[in-house]
Amino acid sequence: MTVPVLIPDDVGMRMLATCDGVLAVRYDTRVDHCPEAEVLVAWQLPLTDLLALITQLPRLRLVQALTSGVEGWVGRLPEGIALANARGASGAACAEWVVATLLSHYRELPRFAASQARRVWAPGETGTLNGKRVLTVGAGDLATRLRDLLIPFGVSVTLTARTARPGVRPASELPDLAGTHDVTVLMAPLTEQTRHLVDADYLSRMPDGAVLVNVARGAVVDTEALIAELHRGRLHAILDVTDPEPLPPGHPLWATAGAQITPHVAAGTYGETERSWSVAVAQIASFIRGHRPDNLI
Amino acid sequence: MTVPVLIPDDVGMRMLATCDGVLAVRYDTRVDHCPEAEVLVAWQLPLTDLLALITQLPRLRLVQALTSGVEGWVGRLPEGIALANARGASGAACAEWVVATLLSHYRELPRFAASQARRVWAPGETGTLNGKRVLTVGAGDLATRLRDLLIPFGVSVTLTARTARPGVRPASELPDLAGTHDVTVLMAPLTEQTRHLVDADYLSRMPDGAVLVNVARGAVVDTEALIAELHRGRLHAILDVTDPEPLPPGHPLWATAGAQITPHVAAGTYGETERSWSVAVAQIASFIRGHRPDNLI
Repeated sequence: MTVPVLIPDDVGMRMLATCDGVLAVRYDTRVDHCPEAEVLVAWQLPLTDLLALITQLPRLRLVQALTSGVEGWVGRLPEGIALANARGASGAACAEWVVATLLSHYRELPRFAASQARRVWAPGETGTLNGKRVLTVGAGDLATRLRDLLIPFGVSVTLTARTARPGVRPASELPDLAGTHDVTVLMAPLTEQTRHLVDADYLSRMPDGAVLVNVARGAVVDTEALIAELHRGRLHAILDVTDPEPLPPGHPLWATAGAQITPHVAAGTYGETERSWSVAVAQIASFIRGHRPDNLI
Repeated sequence: MTVPVLIPDDVGMRMLATCDGVLAVRYDTRVDHCPEAEVLVAWQLPLTDLLALITQLPRLRLVQALTSGVEGWVGRLPEGIALANARGASGAACAEWVVATLLSHYRELPRFAASQARRVWAPGETGTLNGKRVLTVGAGDLATRLRDLLIPFGVSVTLTARTARPGVRPASELPDLAGTHDVTVLMAPLTEQTRHLVDADYLSRMPDGAVLVNVARGAVVDTEALIAELHRGRLHAILDVTDPEPLPPGHPLWATAGAQITPHVAAGTYGETERSWSVAVAQIASFIRGHRPDNLI
């Protein structure tokens, strides 16, 4: 017995070929050649297009995403269709990126690049990551990987999540924790609870010189409040995600002093596609053997 | 009984005040007010000036440096005068800096900074530090600290030193090791053995895309050979030290593609002076109690 799985790209076709019990079927904007499909791996189509395709798949039981963030899907799928993400594929790359940007900020690498461009030897002391207190919003794969990278640098790390557990503080304490940490790193999914979690009040509680890092979703931050706070010159923001995204050319955030913007690349090291597919294949293999995939939402 | 110690700055005067058995005496370009001094903490004077001062100190037994690199002193002191460096004060900052610059390079932070300056949202995959093979020339405090920071990133680290020991390969293997590592980090003192250790032959053995990091001394690298090799476009060099140093405004290295230059700031985080003095005070305290200081050269 084989389970028909709709696959959106060649990498997936190649990687599913090794998975017993799967009949891999390629699709793009149409699925009417495989109405019996039971699994669909989500393609980079607009969500409304994907939801329309799904109405043509009466036997569909699982939508497998190739990303960690699946906030657009939640509550939108017909009953009986499970949703799984690719959590774990990008955690290492994202955590590495957070350390990269924090180190670059504290050690002032852009300042020295500017000196080199002017061919000026201009030494001077800089800050350091050593001794900093880092607060994460989120306590999943990404946050624990980040913690493991930061501790050897002499950083203390506080994890938070909706629900407290050993080693993890409850999100309800965030307003108080904001004031006692040098860095807040956002790495939680976008939900109604996290939308605009970082607002004017939160930002005002962050200490002078503090750094906000967003590798979650742009809307976890109230962008207008952030721009207003950055204009006071107290804080630095490192944003791999924005609201809106992509950030339009004329948006004031681009040129706000203290805002460092990268175009959603924290997870995007070479091999990201293959890593996402590795997770997806494992999820699908588990699902068709009748098990509950680890990454069900 | 107190030992007269010549101290070049206010930080040292303050920190030596807590050290039993020391009579701290401030000096600048003259020492004739304290001919009985037994210890001199080296000041940022030209070496020839310091050597001239020393001829006026017949009871001098120890010169304590505030830096790790003391290559200029070696063999220049009269017999009977010991030399100690401040090894350990800057290891953490230097190792942090190496990781900072490697992460910035692999994750291409300058590319995204340039995109932001043009207000262009230009995503794209980047390299990663994960999986890289790093070779250190030197296996002391700095190299072991660097290794401890890199391993959690999924990096494999090979240490080398003049003499092999468990976990450390002999420097004689460097030409072979160059070809099998993605990164060579120079963190050994400048000696007759290490001068121009990285020459045209070494550079030619490094694989395409490899990175050379120099936090040792500029002359460990043959600068002319490096410029010639960088012109081939195969390698990237991250140089915190140069030969000559400071690098003069018209020097071709400034604008050589693939050369990233910082002005000897790897150890220079806020608090560096205090950290160097902490080490120096511990050395001096040990010495005046009749022990052999750990950092004797």
